[in-house]
Amino acid sequence: MAEGKYIPLDLLAEARSCLTDTPVIHSPLIPLNVEIPNKKIYLKCENLQPFRSFKARGACFAISKLETEKREAGICAASAGNFAQSLGYMAKQFNMPCEILAPDHIPETKLSKTLELGAKVSKVPVSDWWNALQTRGYSTMGNASFIHPCDINVMAGHGTIGMEIMEDLPKVDTVICPYGSGGLIIGVASAVKQVNPNVRVLACEPENAAPLKASLTAGKLVEFTEYRTSFVDGMGSKSVLPEAWPYVSQIVEGSVVVTLREVADSIRLLIDKHSLVTEGAGAGALAAAFSNEVPNGTIVCVLSGGNIDKDKLLTIFDGQVP
Amino acid sequence: MAEGKYIPLDLLAEARSCLTDTPVIHSPLIPLNVEIPNKKIYLKCENLQPFRSFKARGACFAISKLETEKREAGICAASAGNFAQSLGYMAKQFNMPCEILAPDHIPETKLSKTLELGAKVSKVPVSDWWNALQTRGYSTMGNASFIHPCDINVMAGHGTIGMEIMEDLPKVDTVICPYGSGGLIIGVASAVKQVNPNVRVLACEPENAAPLKASLTAGKLVEFTEYRTSFVDGMGSKSVLPEAWPYVSQIVEGSVVVTLREVADSIRLLIDKHSLVTEGAGAGALAAAFSNEVPNGTIVCVLSGGNIDKDKLLTIFDGQVP
Repeated sequence: MAEGKYIPLDLLAEARSCLTDTPVIHSPLIPLNVEIPNKKIYLKCENLQPFRSFKARGACFAISKLETEKREAGICAASAGNFAQSLGYMAKQFNMPCEILAPDHIPETKLSKTLELGAKVSKVPVSDWWNALQTRGYSTMGNASFIHPCDINVMAGHGTIGMEIMEDLPKVDTVICPYGSGGLIIGVASAVKQVNPNVRVLACEPENAAPLKASLTAGKLVEFTEYRTSFVDGMGSKSVLPEAWPYVSQIVEGSVVVTLREVADSIRLLIDKHSLVTEGAGAGALAAAFSNEVPNGTIVCVLSGGNIDKDKLLTIFDGQVP
Repeated sequence: MAEGKYIPLDLLAEARSCLTDTPVIHSPLIPLNVEIPNKKIYLKCENLQPFRSFKARGACFAISKLETEKREAGICAASAGNFAQSLGYMAKQFNMPCEILAPDHIPETKLSKTLELGAKVSKVPVSDWWNALQTRGYSTMGNASFIHPCDINVMAGHGTIGMEIMEDLPKVDTVICPYGSGGLIIGVASAVKQVNPNVRVLACEPENAAPLKASLTAGKLVEFTEYRTSFVDGMGSKSVLPEAWPYVSQIVEGSVVVTLREVADSIRLLIDKHSLVTEGAGAGALAAAFSNEVPNGTIVCVLSGGNIDKDKLLTIFDGQVP
C-alpha cells in the first residue's frame, strides 16, 4: 500500500501463475441476454468458481504464499462465509488447522460447507466480528496467522479477475464489483487500470449498508449510521475497513447504491435468463449496471458468488424480497 | 446422410463461422468440483446459452441457411420447448411467422417464453406431437418450412459443441450427450470423431423413456414399450426417430440409462457445487458419468439446457423427485 495506489503488476502476475495449479478457473465472461439501450453488459461468472465464490482466488494465493514455518500454527479469519470455505479448503490441502470467526447471520449453506471442510467456526455478534476484522485478530486465535481480506496477497489473488477481463474484453468501459471488505475491487481495479487507466471501476453497495458511498461523498471515512443486516450478506458493511480506504479512495470512481428489491430482481433474472444462481452480493453489480448512474458503454459485472440459502431463493422465486 | 455416417466437416465449419455473428456463445467447459476416483469430469455448459439451451446453435444455423424465397411463408416445428424458443427468436430476427406444435406436458417456463417471442404455440397430445415429428408436418402448417431436429443444418449447428470440446480439451476420452431427437449427439459425434475417432460418444436416456438403448441392443429400431412422460422432458422418447438411426447406430458407442432419482440428484448437485441450474435432460449426462457403465478417464458431460419449472426445482431442492 505504501508503495503506490495499485497492487504491483508483478505480484498480480505471480498470483495468476500460482492459480493455474489450483481448482480456480478462468471464469467465463458471458454477454447478458437482455437488451438494454446503449449498454452492452457482460457477466464475469465468479459464482462458477470452486465454493461458488471469487474468494477462492485470494485464499489460494495467500495460503500458497504463507511461510512454511507459520503453517503448523494454522490460519484463522473473520469471514461472512465465502472466504471461510475457500480458506477451509486450502487449509485442508496443506493439513493446517483453520478457525473461522463468523457473524451470527452467516447463511446456513455457507456455515455447513465450511464445517464440512474441517474448519472450526465460532459464531459471534456482527459487531464483535467486525471488530476482529478491524483489529486483525480475536482472543482465541493463538499463534494462528490471521488472513485478512485486505492482505495484499489476498487482494492480488482477486486481481486475477481483472487480468482475465482485460484479456477477454479489452474494449471494456466500466467494471462493477460488489463492495464488502474492499479486497475484490482493489485487486480488480489494480489489474484493470494498470492495463488501461481509462476503464471506470465502480463499487456497488446495498441500501442498508453503504459506507463506501458515504465515505467517498464525505471525502473521508465515515460510518453508515443506518446500517442493518439483510439477505445480502456478502456486500455492504457498517464502515469501510481502514486498510482499504487508501486504495479505494484513489482508484474507484464511485459506488452505486442498489435497493434490496433490485438485487432480488437481478437474482431472479440471472436464473431466468442464464441458469445462473447468485447470492445477493453476486447479483449486486448487475442491479447497479441497470442504474442511470452507470454510463452507457461496455460494462462488466462481477458476479461474485452463488452461495444463497434455499429459503431465500424460494422467496425470490416468488417475486418477493427475503 | 446418404453421403456418409458423419455430418461433413465443411458444413460443421460453416456452422461454426455463422454462429460467431449470433448471440450463441462458445460455452464454458468447467471441471466438476467433486472428486470421483479415476474420473476427471468436465461440464460443457450449454445451459448458459441464450434461451438456456444448446438448441440455439442448430436453430440459428438452420434459419440462416433457409432460402430467402421460403422465408415469407415462415417456419414451423414440433418441439418440447427448447427448440421452440430458439426458433421463435430467430424467426423474430428475420420477421418470419413461426408456429410451434408442442406436447401437452410442455413446461410452463418453456411455453411462456416461446409465446413472449411472438410464436404461435398449439398444444397437442404427445402421440400427435411425436407423429408430426415423424411425418415432418401437421395439418395446419400451410406452406411454412418444417424445421426438423434432425435436419442436417440443425445437427451441424449442434455439432459446433463438439468442435469446441476438441479445441478446449483435446485429451477427452468420452463425451456424454442426453438423447432426445438425436440431433445433438449426431452433431457432436460427427465433430468429435472426425478430429479423433478414438473418443467414445455415449448417449444417456431416462429410465422411463429409453428407446435408443433398446434399439442399440436389438440392432434395429424398436419401440420403448413402457414409455411414460416425466419431469425429464428434454431427453428420452417412445422411439428413435428414423432419420437419426442411420447415424446413431454407427457412431454412438452406447446409451447409459439413468433413473429419475439420479437425474434429480445431479440437478441438486449442480446448483449446490456450481451455481448452475439445469433441467432434467441438462443434468442427465452428469448422472450417467457417475455410472460404472462409463469407463474411467476424462469425461465431458453436455449440460444441454436449464429450462426447468420452478415447482419442479423446489421439489428437487427438498431432496424429492418431481
